[in-house]
Amino acid sequence: MNVDGRPCRTIWPGDDGVTVCVIDQRRLPHEFVTRRLRTLDEAVFAIADMMVRGAPLIGATAAFGVALGLRADPSDEGLRHAVTRLVASRPTAVNLAWAAHAVAAAVGGLPAAQRFEAAMREALRICEDDVASCQRNGEHGADLLEQLSAGDRPLQVLTHCNAGWLAAVDWGTALAPVYQLQRRGRAVHVWVDETRPRNQGASLTAWELGQQGIAHTVIADNAGGHLMQQGKVDVCIVGADRVAANGDVCNKIGTYLKALAAFDNGVPFYAALPHSTIDWQMPEGRSIRIEERDPEEVHTIVGLDGSGALSRVRLTPPGSAAANYAFDVTPARLVRGVITERGVGAASRAGLLDLYPSRAQTQPR
Amino acid sequence: MNVDGRPCRTIWPGDDGVTVCVIDQRRLPHEFVTRRLRTLDEAVFAIADMMVRGAPLIGATAAFGVALGLRADPSDEGLRHAVTRLVASRPTAVNLAWAAHAVAAAVGGLPAAQRFEAAMREALRICEDDVASCQRNGEHGADLLEQLSAGDRPLQVLTHCNAGWLAAVDWGTALAPVYQLQRRGRAVHVWVDETRPRNQGASLTAWELGQQGIAHTVIADNAGGHLMQQGKVDVCIVGADRVAANGDVCNKIGTYLKALAAFDNGVPFYAALPHSTIDWQMPEGRSIRIEERDPEEVHTIVGLDGSGALSRVRLTPPGSAAANYAFDVTPARLVRGVITERGVGAASRAGLLDLYPSRAQTQPR
Repeated sequence: MNVDGRPCRTIWPGDDGVTVCVIDQRRLPHEFVTRRLRTLDEAVFAIADMMVRGAPLIGATAAFGVALGLRADPSDEGLRHAVTRLVASRPTAVNLAWAAHAVAAAVGGLPAAQRFEAAMREALRICEDDVASCQRNGEHGADLLEQLSAGDRPLQVLTHCNAGWLAAVDWGTALAPVYQLQRRGRAVHVWVDETRPRNQGASLTAWELGQQGIAHTVIADNAGGHLMQQGKVDVCIVGADRVAANGDVCNKIGTYLKALAAFDNGVPFYAALPHSTIDWQMPEGRSIRIEERDPEEVHTIVGLDGSGALSRVRLTPPGSAAANYAFDVTPARLVRGVITERGVGAASRAGLLDLYPSRAQTQPR
Repeated sequence: MNVDGRPCRTIWPGDDGVTVCVIDQRRLPHEFVTRRLRTLDEAVFAIADMMVRGAPLIGATAAFGVALGLRADPSDEGLRHAVTRLVASRPTAVNLAWAAHAVAAAVGGLPAAQRFEAAMREALRICEDDVASCQRNGEHGADLLEQLSAGDRPLQVLTHCNAGWLAAVDWGTALAPVYQLQRRGRAVHVWVDETRPRNQGASLTAWELGQQGIAHTVIADNAGGHLMQQGKVDVCIVGADRVAANGDVCNKIGTYLKALAAFDNGVPFYAALPHSTIDWQMPEGRSIRIEERDPEEVHTIVGLDGSGALSRVRLTPPGSAAANYAFDVTPARLVRGVITERGVGAASRAGLLDLYPSRAQTQPR
């Protein structure tokens, strides 16, 4: 997608062939800054501190992170260490583990001297696969959205958090259908949940939609239910950090509340995701470990102050505690369907197997 | 309730007998500042700018506001003008209109020269009535909460926005039962929704619970559903800005989402309110006019910066629009009951009439 009118991805290999470049998403929407990751430690930090975030992009970063680790230590022990460190950097998104293990599997049989370059190639392949997957996801999703469009008025989409191109390598998951719809010349407007505590909606989704020229309105996370009651939302589309084998969707905290409101108002609710987000071994969502992050993310928020500088301000009284659960689980019964690179399917084991029949032999733990 | 260990109310007549003092709630939790209202204009501004907020406190302020207006112009025209201005200052809370009209009715038959003092007396009477009402509400609510308490572990209450003593003259509505429970020596912990965009939970509820020494944890508005799924909430209690004659509850935006989650998880959901919050002429919630406030409240937020000064920071990109709906309507079907000064009743026309049989002749419009 575009930044100031020029195509950009969220992650790419450095010109030097031994580093990886990313957008520092902690600075958006106020500053567009790119960073160079040189080491495993820097890759782990980029994921843990949410310089990069979004399940597919975390996966891509982890893939490159294994390579960076192998550059310093290409031994079997170095490989195990890199995978372990990366997988532990954030516990909920399954793409992270999937990508790190995919790179490890691709290079584990090679001599140590060849591992770094092979890992870089595998990481690049994972990135290209993600781009192609998100693009196809967008086409299938746009077909669906066209069916939901009514007459000439813009289709009203509500999304939570950021599952746009900034969450993937390009295109995105939940927003890929919106971008495809735009290319087809259809009018669309997106309601953007600000998504406290880290405000990925107000900062990232609003920014990337603005960069692509798509009409959008930022709302407090509290507002979506009211909008649906008022008939102002035609469809909800969110991303996913992990989908269980039964179709339960683990995604950014607050997704469940929007799914409840969508269900209560007959608004179709979809999760958009690539195959790597499905955890075939996870029988149901309630077994997924939910990351708890630093309460400071609730106590404080970062924005642009009157002087144009980024400033962190405190919102709560000094003696108050805060809790910060990063994700929740939306039961499959509330999800109208999943949008994938294979097409749109039901949020159920049967629906997922229709899309991915080769996984029929995978048994949930 | 207490501020730094000393009893305080949210509104009181000035020593000079011709002004009204309030807490400037826009500065909390960072600064405790009181302000003196001298004129009708200042009373209207205090309500519209949310220096005072919360349905019962808005009512009390409107009552004093009529008096302040009459001090400048005690004519019939002056009285009509004061009521009209105050009622228009915020459209959703019904207590506002109720209190302004109550004062007008009490003084309308008096000679102009007696109106100001009579209006001040009537406003004080409304305040005392609110305090007594909230206290009884707290006792009835605490009886209910004691039934919900399980063993020795603290009762887990979730609340949205601020319906504590800062929203009323004293005691509060949703938090009055919590304060009574504390006096009865029962352990209680409150999950405090931060309540974007104006963060009345993170700023006001957290502050007043802290001042009373009640255990509490601030959470993003997105988190409540997950907590209920995890069995971490025993009961939800919220206030109300207007309750329709059929039991539909209009309250701070986002209340509906929590009610959906409570219903989905079998968690009892109550609204606590005084009689003046019931709009007997409003047949159902969907007819209530929902206030739309300045989008800047979504674009920006105020907090304490690193230097200890209050600072407003911008959260969204420059080109993005924002929408700011202040309230939503929770259908009565999701509300286990209403807690009032008369006791706990069903959220239905029959339930409300059981509590207030004298209103049986009031026909909804």
